Amino acid sequence: MSLNETYDNDNVFAKIIRGDLPSVKLFEDDKILSFMDVFPQSSGHCLVIHKQATATNLFDIDEKSLGEIMTATQKVARAVKDGLSPDGIRIVQFNGAPAGQTVFHLHFHIIPVYADKTIGDHASGGPAPTEQLEELAQKIRAKL
Amino acid sequence: MSLNETYDNDNVFAKIIRGDLPSVKLFEDDKILSFMDVFPQSSGHCLVIHKQATATNLFDIDEKSLGEIMTATQKVARAVKDGLSPDGIRIVQFNGAPAGQTVFHLHFHIIPVYADKTIGDHASGGPAPTEQLEELAQKIRAKL
Repeated sequence: MSLNETYDNDNVFAKIIRGDLPSVKLFEDDKILSFMDVFPQSSGHCLVIHKQATATNLFDIDEKSLGEIMTATQKVARAVKDGLSPDGIRIVQFNGAPAGQTVFHLHFHIIPVYADKTIGDHASGGPAPTEQLEELAQKIRAKL
Repeated sequence: MSLNETYDNDNVFAKIIRGDLPSVKLFEDDKILSFMDVFPQSSGHCLVIHKQATATNLFDIDEKSLGEIMTATQKVARAVKDGLSPDGIRIVQFNGAPAGQTVFHLHFHIIPVYADKTIGDHASGGPAPTEQLEELAQKIRAKL
């Protein structure tokens, strides 16, 4: 079943954690990294991942690390709320390619929803310009 | 902003917790309740809520209770995976009506994804027959 992928140390997020790929970071400590999604489904779409737990999905992460991700997700989502004032926020986590997962390192999406805009498909618009992501990130970081 | 609803003690999930409304339960202890969504977006769609934390959304729940919800969500999602063998599973949590939230008691959706079927709109098909939900619930409970 497609929910049993093995962890690939060269997945995109592993490279971001190692600093082998760039990212627009919101928050980082020894365990957690939060950064802007380069294929945003809405303005301010960002991600939260664990840096130490090499879990492909929800099914192979330990309870403690999962709790750490959720604490950070709540914290970053609050900053998105306060910094960008969306009308709503979706928290989404995909397990398996058929569910929409594209990077097999467990991650939680924080997707702001604006009443006058529909949510786009992931990657439908191509990667967002870094300066645009940086501008949004500054507003979020200011509330962290 | 619509993300600042106050908690209504008569919301549907509060009534389910009190036993004033029926539900097809998967799992219950003193803190957590998991039950089948009566407006399933896919076969096996279920929910996880906290029974004690009267939080409307992600922004007003304490860290400990959030961790307890996630531990239970992981546990029930595993049972959905093992009991129904979907091709993928989505974990979704909506904050605010514009994001899709319809009941203002914090809840996490566990939505199985099947490669040959598209995910329906919430409530698009009307409520599911109880016996159908019970049949699915039995398969999930068997793996809990």
